[in-house]
Amino acid sequence: MSKPVLIIGGGPAGLAAAHSLATVGKECVLVEKEEKLGGAPILSGYAKLVPTGEWAKDAIGGMVKRVEDESAVKVMTGTKVAKFDGTPGDFTAELSNGDSVDAESVIVCSGFTHFDSVNKPEWGFGTYEDVVTTTQVEQMISAGNGVRCPSDGRKPNRVAILLCVGSRDRQIGREWCSKICCTVSSNIAMEIREELPDCHVYIYYMDIRTFGLYETKYYWKSQEEFKVKYIKARIAEVTSDGEKLIVKGEDTLVKRPITIPFDMVVHAIGMDPNVDNPEISETFGIDLETHGFIDVANRYGSMGATSRPGVYVAGSATGPETIDDSITQGHAAAMAVLADAKDLKSA
Amino acid sequence: MSKPVLIIGGGPAGLAAAHSLATVGKECVLVEKEEKLGGAPILSGYAKLVPTGEWAKDAIGGMVKRVEDESAVKVMTGTKVAKFDGTPGDFTAELSNGDSVDAESVIVCSGFTHFDSVNKPEWGFGTYEDVVTTTQVEQMISAGNGVRCPSDGRKPNRVAILLCVGSRDRQIGREWCSKICCTVSSNIAMEIREELPDCHVYIYYMDIRTFGLYETKYYWKSQEEFKVKYIKARIAEVTSDGEKLIVKGEDTLVKRPITIPFDMVVHAIGMDPNVDNPEISETFGIDLETHGFIDVANRYGSMGATSRPGVYVAGSATGPETIDDSITQGHAAAMAVLADAKDLKSA
Repeated sequence: MSKPVLIIGGGPAGLAAAHSLATVGKECVLVEKEEKLGGAPILSGYAKLVPTGEWAKDAIGGMVKRVEDESAVKVMTGTKVAKFDGTPGDFTAELSNGDSVDAESVIVCSGFTHFDSVNKPEWGFGTYEDVVTTTQVEQMISAGNGVRCPSDGRKPNRVAILLCVGSRDRQIGREWCSKICCTVSSNIAMEIREELPDCHVYIYYMDIRTFGLYETKYYWKSQEEFKVKYIKARIAEVTSDGEKLIVKGEDTLVKRPITIPFDMVVHAIGMDPNVDNPEISETFGIDLETHGFIDVANRYGSMGATSRPGVYVAGSATGPETIDDSITQGHAAAMAVLADAKDLKSA
Repeated sequence: MSKPVLIIGGGPAGLAAAHSLATVGKECVLVEKEEKLGGAPILSGYAKLVPTGEWAKDAIGGMVKRVEDESAVKVMTGTKVAKFDGTPGDFTAELSNGDSVDAESVIVCSGFTHFDSVNKPEWGFGTYEDVVTTTQVEQMISAGNGVRCPSDGRKPNRVAILLCVGSRDRQIGREWCSKICCTVSSNIAMEIREELPDCHVYIYYMDIRTFGLYETKYYWKSQEEFKVKYIKARIAEVTSDGEKLIVKGEDTLVKRPITIPFDMVVHAIGMDPNVDNPEISETFGIDLETHGFIDVANRYGSMGATSRPGVYVAGSATGPETIDDSITQGHAAAMAVLADAKDLKSA
């Protein structure tokens, strides 16, 4: 009898892989280190997702439910892989709960870690209560409480969203672009404007990267329908005059210093490699790329191959990724392990 | 006996879908309107691909060969679907060559059409011989002849690459961003600098969208290792002083008009919806989105679903897309039709 596929991580990529494999009758064991499934969109309480506008709890929550209802998927939460050994078709994983799993192949969908804004202290996070992150604003919206200043609960009249916090920033060792923060910020800006029509929302950017069809749906729509204002700027610091937060920087389009007061400042935080990647790399014997994400082979021959045969990777474990593309990669990796299984059978 | 999967289009997405389905023993019929397989990377003669640096003729050529060697894939080139009817599990397609194909499901991988630069006449294409497109430069490189001025065959000393030609341009009805031209242009700029170390290469941009890990591999590398120069500018026109091409515009970072002479000007052309999309939409009874690309359902429940059950879509048919993501979507759509097949069997 064939062995199951071991899936590491229950975020969008892992859920997609597990669901599609189960649908074609392939058994899976899904191991998730957190206590519940869903990955960042569920665990961090995202609000409406790019690009569908569906609530994360419905969209990704639906994916969780489908996997939990699948008899072909054995879900183990609060669990990690402690030891891993074997060859394609014949792997064994020892789990942190003492169980052991024999697996035909593995799909690593271990995701990313949100950048911690305390690593960018000059932009006020940790110093001023009303400096928050995009994730915190998502949580305010998804909790249904509206966007309010944490210091006193008032409705903000002026909100600044600062892009590239923990991205494209060599000073703090984050050279990469986090790919989706521009679009997510534009989405959040529209949500704030929708709830608080009198609130002015400014987005401070280096380059606006609403690529592909996001250009219409986010960049243009946010400006034209929602009057969100975009400022190309190099930000120096976020301070306070005792009453308002003060964003100081240089408007790089007019080459002039700008100092603007705000009620709330939002850090559009980037995507770091999963903090556990060194451990994951060591346990599974797979290589990391230069920034610490999991290295993936070219896609011309196989999908999501890592440096170790039989071990695949999908989603933001490979680098900053959108939810849609993470899901797609999960399905594609599922297809790859099916193809492997066929090869093993005929071998 | 189960029917084959009908795949429309033999570019990266279609090749990926066909190969993975064949590998698990699922028969496919691949219908391609052109006389050979490979899609844009092969038919338009691309050079080294983003992000692997492999030659298109090797990377995508290898995908073509694998599909042609697959006995489970029946390839029909120079052929289109003339008529299409039926329901999931029971479709019939009448082909332009008179054949008829019964199919269980369909994956539309009909790709895009390169923007035609004659639609942007003020930027000199069609007027001056030495104004060319990124595709033409790719062809010069892949043909092994080096980058030369078409007018007299000389090596250019100064090359300007103009981004967003046929993208982000409402005046000509192209509001969307073509997603990958920034990175491709950065790649081409490095290839020119590698072959012609004395040549100065400038990239004129609105926003540099080398998203995700491309930031390191293209944006930084092109500036630091290859001394490619980036100018944020609004371009007014490309003219000639009889000897050199003259690019006139406004440097939007210093708000000053700039006029610079060049030997060669390269249009980084965008991705239009496939010109055949209205016909494809009509034939297959599937909806197009607002810009004319094929509309795709959300990805939380299924992969690449169109508005018609049993008909899927993958790759740049859905909007501007990278080659890697097109391949991934092809594999994911293959997974979706396998899941469908299972559902049909158990129904």
